[in-house]
Amino acid sequence: MNTYPNFKFTVNHRASDSRARTGLYETPHGSIETPAFIFCATKAAMKGIAPTDMRAANTQIILSNTYHLMLNPGSERVAKAGGLHKFMGWDGPMFTDSGGFQIFSLGHGSVAEEIKGKRSGSRNKSLVKITEEGAHFRSYLDGSKHLLTPERSIQIQRELGADLIVVLDECTPFHVDKRYTERSMLLSHRWALRSYDEFARHNDGKQALYGIVQGGVYPDLRKIGTDFVNSHDFFAHAVGGSLGATKEQMYDVVGMTMENLDPKRPVHLLGIGGISDILNGVEQGIDTFDCVHPTRLARHGGALLRPSLHPEVKPNRREHINLRNAIFQEDFNPIDPECACSTCQNFSRGYLHYLLKAQELLAMQAISIHNVFTMNRLLTDIRHGISNNNLAQVKQYWLAS
Amino acid sequence: MNTYPNFKFTVNHRASDSRARTGLYETPHGSIETPAFIFCATKAAMKGIAPTDMRAANTQIILSNTYHLMLNPGSERVAKAGGLHKFMGWDGPMFTDSGGFQIFSLGHGSVAEEIKGKRSGSRNKSLVKITEEGAHFRSYLDGSKHLLTPERSIQIQRELGADLIVVLDECTPFHVDKRYTERSMLLSHRWALRSYDEFARHNDGKQALYGIVQGGVYPDLRKIGTDFVNSHDFFAHAVGGSLGATKEQMYDVVGMTMENLDPKRPVHLLGIGGISDILNGVEQGIDTFDCVHPTRLARHGGALLRPSLHPEVKPNRREHINLRNAIFQEDFNPIDPECACSTCQNFSRGYLHYLLKAQELLAMQAISIHNVFTMNRLLTDIRHGISNNNLAQVKQYWLAS
Repeated sequence: MNTYPNFKFTVNHRASDSRARTGLYETPHGSIETPAFIFCATKAAMKGIAPTDMRAANTQIILSNTYHLMLNPGSERVAKAGGLHKFMGWDGPMFTDSGGFQIFSLGHGSVAEEIKGKRSGSRNKSLVKITEEGAHFRSYLDGSKHLLTPERSIQIQRELGADLIVVLDECTPFHVDKRYTERSMLLSHRWALRSYDEFARHNDGKQALYGIVQGGVYPDLRKIGTDFVNSHDFFAHAVGGSLGATKEQMYDVVGMTMENLDPKRPVHLLGIGGISDILNGVEQGIDTFDCVHPTRLARHGGALLRPSLHPEVKPNRREHINLRNAIFQEDFNPIDPECACSTCQNFSRGYLHYLLKAQELLAMQAISIHNVFTMNRLLTDIRHGISNNNLAQVKQYWLAS
Repeated sequence: MNTYPNFKFTVNHRASDSRARTGLYETPHGSIETPAFIFCATKAAMKGIAPTDMRAANTQIILSNTYHLMLNPGSERVAKAGGLHKFMGWDGPMFTDSGGFQIFSLGHGSVAEEIKGKRSGSRNKSLVKITEEGAHFRSYLDGSKHLLTPERSIQIQRELGADLIVVLDECTPFHVDKRYTERSMLLSHRWALRSYDEFARHNDGKQALYGIVQGGVYPDLRKIGTDFVNSHDFFAHAVGGSLGATKEQMYDVVGMTMENLDPKRPVHLLGIGGISDILNGVEQGIDTFDCVHPTRLARHGGALLRPSLHPEVKPNRREHINLRNAIFQEDFNPIDPECACSTCQNFSRGYLHYLLKAQELLAMQAISIHNVFTMNRLLTDIRHGISNNNLAQVKQYWLAS
């Protein structure tokens, strides 16, 4: 019996000189052309962008974070509204994470503070405690105690109702040793099986479950991690765990992981969103990416732009310009003369610079729309590059300074 | 010679039982059907709404405030960008005020604080001083000293380049005596003539000048004020000065003013934006209105709604509901089932309630769009009501609880 009767992933074209591939990812809320970028509507809302504007910027798929939604408004209320799609007015494919990432990043942040000796009153208690059962943590909103088990994560994600959902894992921090990484991976595997069992008990065909590959930066552990997910009935895989401390190490880790993953399943790279990182990930065979980077950058005035379009900014290796910079005060050109987004059609760099200085809401919104449009344009170029066997030219176009 | 060759105001239909009228107001950036509402893009931006979304919400005309723009980014920079229309990406009709209103409201606010004994350090100096020459004031941004003369106000408004511009006047506060009101009116008349002369010296046909009727709540002074503007070559008139302390007094003052104003010229009522106030103003013969109310209200969670659509909210005489109210937590209906705006098509009251609680930017934006759309719907209904001789029914529809 097919666990996922309403989902299908078809590889359409493979690059001759890398693992890059294009595909069609079919879900109950429509299809995604891959490689694709998944935008973060963290709390069931894109910050300052309506779903219709996300569509107009060619967005295929968005995600929301289980951690935030379980605390507010609660998955029960989202279910009463008819699920996340109806609740937030997005009718396309959606992804939710397990809730683990935010729990653990808060927890490890707290540990980090302890190591640095920044203890003060109640702050020196770690915000997260991991047991075999699950992750015990306190709400960032009101300090209330919660326990997220693999079963609970799946129950919440079922109530939220996204198309693509994820097993609970422990997100290991950087700088832990191999022994810790291995133990953590094995715990995550046990949690993954409990997640799958909970998923299978109530599977109505509307959701597809992702397994996560752990193993940190260690090739032998990554091999165990990939063998684990390949051998279980997940619809898709996500590359998780520590990807190392540098870009080079990240590329290595993604490479060693992709070598062994089942090529028939779609693969998501968690939390990576830089232009060069995406191009590298695509060459390793990654099908989908997600990151808060494009929209968070926008809220701080950063507009995505390939380096050769901003020779006036030194150093110009960066993949964006900061519109708060005074050099844009009387620059009445669009952010990007090649961009067809509504922001570049209507607003100049100088106007956006002014809006940022005047703290007008419209600035964040307009730059966010440009960045979303630009990410979608990058991924469209990448798909064309793979189909036309000229991905190298696409890479040159987007990265050359 | 016609001072205003590119402007035309045509009355199309008059109500039989009131001074209500429909008209077509032609400007170099397009025509406005009147009665019309002018939305406040205070600092050359609607807070959280792109010009394309303003258009989609049926907006005909917007205004920006000279006071804010002269201080930041400065009219010179706006001129370098090609004027306000190009600077902010709005290609329809625009209105700017003289800058006086904000200067004087800040100044009188300061005086009010002195009266209440709230003196502290440098705060006890009034922020504004009026001389025959103009208004001396300090910037709210950096405390720098400025002098706004009638000539300077017109120069700035010329550099900004709105279609409709306004003479500088002294905005008299409430609660001044008749003697003060009269002296203030006569000063405003001298300033109006200086404004007109400056306007005429550089008139290129692209802008139309408004005269302002002063006179406070006093019928004899209002008569002098209306005679003054009627007898000079203004394209249009604005009802300014104190309109009294209550709604009844405001209706009286507007009524006594409208009785004597030249019926061939369009008339603007400054700063009035409630649904019932607009309906009353229309019956008095007002052609255009402006107010921050619809969008400011939205940013605090208030969604415009005619009273009969929210019987569950007590008292239900109000013209809006506050979506922060917990009764909307699980109300998954649109704000207004009769509304065709993008917000009512895509979002529920419960979702907007959640967004407000979660402090998501999208809440302000979505409710603002609803309120803009609703104001434009009200004015469309009013125009149809006048044309079809059933304004009373329109009034009943929008106000009955």
